[in-house]
Amino acid sequence: MNIYILLFQCRDQRGIVAKLADFLFKSGANIITADQYSTDPRGGYFFIRLEFIVDAASRSKSALEKGLGIIADKLGARFSLSDKHKPLRMGICVSKPGHCLAEILYLWRERELNVDIPFVISNFKGHRKFVGQYRIPFYFIPATKSNRRENALLKVVAKSTDFLVLSRYMLVLSKKFLSAYRKDIINIHHGFLPSFKGSSPYKQAFSSGVKVIGATCHFVTEKLDDGPIITQAVEHISHKDGLGDLVCKGRNLEKRALSDALRAYVDYRVIRHDNKTIVF
Amino acid sequence: MNIYILLFQCRDQRGIVAKLADFLFKSGANIITADQYSTDPRGGYFFIRLEFIVDAASRSKSALEKGLGIIADKLGARFSLSDKHKPLRMGICVSKPGHCLAEILYLWRERELNVDIPFVISNFKGHRKFVGQYRIPFYFIPATKSNRRENALLKVVAKSTDFLVLSRYMLVLSKKFLSAYRKDIINIHHGFLPSFKGSSPYKQAFSSGVKVIGATCHFVTEKLDDGPIITQAVEHISHKDGLGDLVCKGRNLEKRALSDALRAYVDYRVIRHDNKTIVF
Amino acid sequence: MNIYILLFQCRDQRGIVAKLADFLFKSGANIITADQYSTDPRGGYFFIRLEFIVDAASRSKSALEKGLGIIADKLGARFSLSDKHKPLRMGICVSKPGHCLAEILYLWRERELNVDIPFVISNFKGHRKFVGQYRIPFYFIPATKSNRRENALLKVVAKSTDFLVLSRYMLVLSKKFLSAYRKDIINIHHGFLPSFKGSSPYKQAFSSGVKVIGATCHFVTEKLDDGPIITQAVEHISHKDGLGDLVCKGRNLEKRALSDALRAYVDYRVIRHDNKTIVF
Amino acid sequence: MNIYILLFQCRDQRGIVAKLADFLFKSGANIITADQYSTDPRGGYFFIRLEFIVDAASRSKSALEKGLGIIADKLGARFSLSDKHKPLRMGICVSKPGHCLAEILYLWRERELNVDIPFVISNFKGHRKFVGQYRIPFYFIPATKSNRRENALLKVVAKSTDFLVLSRYMLVLSKKFLSAYRKDIINIHHGFLPSFKGSSPYKQAFSSGVKVIGATCHFVTEKLDDGPIITQAVEHISHKDGLGDLVCKGRNLEKRALSDALRAYVDYRVIRHDNKTIVF
Repeated sequence: MNIYILLFQCRDQRGIVAKLADFLFKSGANIITADQYSTDPRGGYFFIRLEFIVDAASRSKSALEKGLGIIADKLGARFSLSDKHKPLRMGICVSKPGHCLAEILYLWRERELNVDIPFVISNFKGHRKFVGQYRIPFYFIPATKSNRRENALLKVVAKSTDFLVLSRYMLVLSKKFLSAYRKDIINIHHGFLPSFKGSSPYKQAFSSGVKVIGATCHFVTEKLDDGPIITQAVEHISHKDGLGDLVCKGRNLEKRALSDALRAYVDYRVIRHDNKTIVF
Repeated sequence: MNIYILLFQCRDQRGIVAKLADFLFKSGANIITADQYSTDPRGGYFFIRLEFIVDAASRSKSALEKGLGIIADKLGARFSLSDKHKPLRMGICVSKPGHCLAEILYLWRERELNVDIPFVISNFKGHRKFVGQYRIPFYFIPATKSNRRENALLKVVAKSTDFLVLSRYMLVLSKKFLSAYRKDIINIHHGFLPSFKGSSPYKQAFSSGVKVIGATCHFVTEKLDDGPIITQAVEHISHKDGLGDLVCKGRNLEKRALSDALRAYVDYRVIRHDNKTIVF
Repeated sequence: MNIYILLFQCRDQRGIVAKLADFLFKSGANIITADQYSTDPRGGYFFIRLEFIVDAASRSKSALEKGLGIIADKLGARFSLSDKHKPLRMGICVSKPGHCLAEILYLWRERELNVDIPFVISNFKGHRKFVGQYRIPFYFIPATKSNRRENALLKVVAKSTDFLVLSRYMLVLSKKFLSAYRKDIINIHHGFLPSFKGSSPYKQAFSSGVKVIGATCHFVTEKLDDGPIITQAVEHISHKDGLGDLVCKGRNLEKRALSDALRAYVDYRVIRHDNKTIVF
Repeated sequence: MNIYILLFQCRDQRGIVAKLADFLFKSGANIITADQYSTDPRGGYFFIRLEFIVDAASRSKSALEKGLGIIADKLGARFSLSDKHKPLRMGICVSKPGHCLAEILYLWRERELNVDIPFVISNFKGHRKFVGQYRIPFYFIPATKSNRRENALLKVVAKSTDFLVLSRYMLVLSKKFLSAYRKDIINIHHGFLPSFKGSSPYKQAFSSGVKVIGATCHFVTEKLDDGPIITQAVEHISHKDGLGDLVCKGRNLEKRALSDALRAYVDYRVIRHDNKTIVF
């Protein structure tokens, strides 16, 4: 028995659920989870996530894809079909702050995060030993603001990854890099977006006297710290919290927002739509 | 155009979604929201909530119910079909503490809570004037622990309500009353269940030195403060919070837990299953 | 026995606590709560809040003030001494949205908010009846964006209030008004500042795809939605929440942020310092 | 310059703050943080935490202790004086679940937790390599329910530690062990106490259908899972969360509750009083 996850989206119209459910039923599949969302019940955009079990012998993945493709064509829809238990290959880029890296690697080792990690790339040599303890290849690429070495980066990540995580990577990726890589890039921003974009968000938060701080995990787009938000984590602070406390509390928020987002992403529960996300 | 909500549940089996979706499609309906849950993907219990639009001219409610009944019979399922915009009739019972009552009536007047309120019943006369300001009938039933006057209560509520809310009603309803009323009764308990059942939960919380307090909204069953939980609201406290502060913060939690639960309930998003709830 | 609250602030220097504690001890007072904060332990600004009991017969308020004045002069400090149980006079200004007004009046009636409310001012006539139920004077001042009628407003509030609450008052008060009134004005903003300033913050939040929304209670300064923040309340949202849900959830956040802020303020636990607040 | 932290507690009485502040002033100290709490303003128990800077040359720690001792004797008080920057020696006991261990070691290495860690003791061999990476001694003591090997444990911990952390140590320590060790022992319980004591709290939570789960960090006393609570962390769950999700979310709560508690404890901000704690 295989478990597949179908993500399917199109303009809302009558009969989408019926067509999909009927096809799956006739393919011998049993739907075990259905999540659906429409941007506007009276004529918006329609999204569905179906998780179903099917006997491998009775229907191959490519046969399912073919059938779904026919339905999608009629409805003007896009879809993806994924094998629930086949891990995605997640590349990690990280600069000096290592708390998110440590969290991800720990979750991965404990099998709480279902991914393969082909490598960790850093412009900070100091992580080599730590990463080595997990028996994951470590590549030091001495990227800086003036020389981001994106070609070297691209060479490593292009074919070996299904998506990238910027786990506190302090360099902005260029439009050119994004176009060349073309797959999803997930960033953890150490501030409560849309407030406090750019650098030193905790300093900005501290100066502004806010009583709640946050961290934001989002897809990377060409505009800095502006892509579709996946998760946000927040915590109350008080006047007693100095800048150091904010950084310290913030690290926990970053770990939480990032691990929640990654868990949802690798379970195919995150859908990008315009500048927003649907997180089933 | 009418909007209906279908709640449908049965033992999990292949093809449920297909059968329902196909029926609705052929009835000219367009599914606008689908929420589904199975207790166990490999053979548990299956629940679905479907919200759909249908042209009143093309298919009447009773025609839809008839068709759904045939499907349900084959699958051994239970279902209910409700008119989204037809408000449920919510009876309110309240003792002296009036904060939840005030919250509910305010939400009702602001149309944030889609119900009809046929009356407020209290064993505390002092609420008469307040309730009168909302032009809602007020019945004073001087129930006490030694004489709960459940016959009088039943007489008022039996036919005029679709469900009851115990909005800080301090008397336990008897098994006999529950059997006679037979519809849902929702209670707000001023403690974080399953801790602190029974009376004076804030005193219990204060004495035990907990650092988080809560309020719990649940269905009433024969066992005191033990029915299926719908919502819980929680808040951090510190050693500085005296018993009075706990009561005060707790009132806010009660209002929050209760109003969230009621909003979900009247939107048919709450399903009871054994000793738990599914809240879509 | 009287209970007084002393707020005392100056440049940090050795011996402040000793001088104050010694004076109070010699005055026959017993300190029952002490809260202290320094912006920087090695030479910043020092704040203390002391709550103490003193036998009315032994020492009058003016005698205490005189003694404290001598200490303050030596230390270059500012201070205020307040009678804990003497309620402040809180003026309320409100436009059409009435949920915060309802919350405040309810808390006031239940004695959860220790204030006198000399009046409610509104540019929306519709609140007259509701306010009347609480036997509080209601003044309709038909202020609009083009004619804010601040002279009329000032006439009412100048002498009869100790501070003002803008409980969803949709007009900006001018610099001139602020200079003339000179006392604290507390505003509830229906957004998570510093994001989403100005009007329609929920619409802004909805469009931006944030996963957490908030409300902010702050002091009014000349810059719109930019004064020192007292409290912020936040709540997680999902893609399922439409604009209407945000408004609805937001109302609860506003009520929470505002009532927490007012409770702290009238208990003299809020101190303004530059563009921030200390909330003991 | 040295920074000291004074914890001082006694029956409430007039002049305590004055006596302490006066003594410190005359000793050349500058109070940088004062936190005070009384269980009852009219005659309860009084607690104060004072953080102060003093020139090492002018006054030694023992001289300060001597002076404070005289004051304490007069007031019938207990006190402790600690060097803020001298790390406490924290022993760690851990069974198989390693997430809290990993969190603590990471915080320690990042200097977010100011302690010395003389060793990690475990009845699970598998942690040896992980602990070794941090260059911390690892002792395998094969304790089981039937043979807790408390003598071996005591031998290791008695002299080399200032306090113990049970970082998911699955054995109950005996009364005899507690009496022999005599110092503080901090436990992380993977449930929201006082609900769900004992083993398998997540299973208990799952079966009971709660909508919020929690983790509790508390001092160990003779009664199982019943000592004074230091911190509690909570998170909302839904019907979608299976037992596995609860365990996974719970691990994050445990890490949060434990690290918050330890940070407060080693900063001398936690005071035990009867069955409760004061956490400044």
